[in-house]
Amino acid sequence: MSSILAWIMYDIVEDKARNKIAKVCKKYGLTRVQYSIFLGRLDTNRFDELAELCLDLMDEDTDSVYLFPFCQDDFRRIQVLGQGFDKKLVNDEILSKFF
Amino acid sequence: MSSILAWIMYDIVEDKARNKIAKVCKKYGLTRVQYSIFLGRLDTNRFDELAELCLDLMDEDTDSVYLFPFCQDDFRRIQVLGQGFDKKLVNDEILSKFF
Repeated sequence: MSSILAWIMYDIVEDKARNKIAKVCKKYGLTRVQYSIFLGRLDTNRFDELAELCLDLMDEDTDSVYLFPFCQDDFRRIQVLGQGFDKKLVNDEILSKFF
Repeated sequence: MSSILAWIMYDIVEDKARNKIAKVCKKYGLTRVQYSIFLGRLDTNRFDELAELCLDLMDEDTDSVYLFPFCQDDFRRIQVLGQGFDKKLVNDEILSKFF
C-alpha cells in the first residue's frame, strides 16, 4: 500500500464539529501544526477514509475542509510563510519528520 | 523547465497587503477559486519567485501564506469538501483545466 504525506486544513463554524474533526485527525496519527491544520503520513486508502469521515462531521453549507496529498518531493517544496505554523505546537524536531 | 500545479492560500490581516498578494497571483496567471485561494500552473522557478514576492508584501508577524506545489497525480487526489471552492468564482470548465 502506497503512503502519502497529508496536509489537512479546515474552516469549521461549529465548535463541536471542529473538535470532532481535530480528534479524528489525531486518531489517524496526524500532527497538529496550526489551529486548524494537521500534517502526517497516511496510506492512500486512509486518506480517502479520512475525507469521508470529515464529510460526515462537517456542515457542507458553511464549512470547508481541504485534504492535500503530497509525494515526498512535492512536500519538500511547500513554502509556509509568516505564521503558517504555530511555534507553540511545532518545533524543528517535529518538522524534520516531514521536511 | 518543469512546471507544477500551484495552490496558494493566504490569511492576511491588512486589506492593502491582501489585495497586493491577490494582484500578484493574478499576474502570475493563477485563477482565484476562493476568497483567499488561487490555483494554476507555474514553472518551478516562478513558484519560488512568487513565494519571495509574497514574503515582501506580507507582515510575517501577523499573516500566513501557504504555497503548495503539486504534480498532476497528487493534484488529482486533492479533496475539497463543503465550501472549499467559491461557486461564483469556479465552474466545471475552470476546474477541468486542473483536475
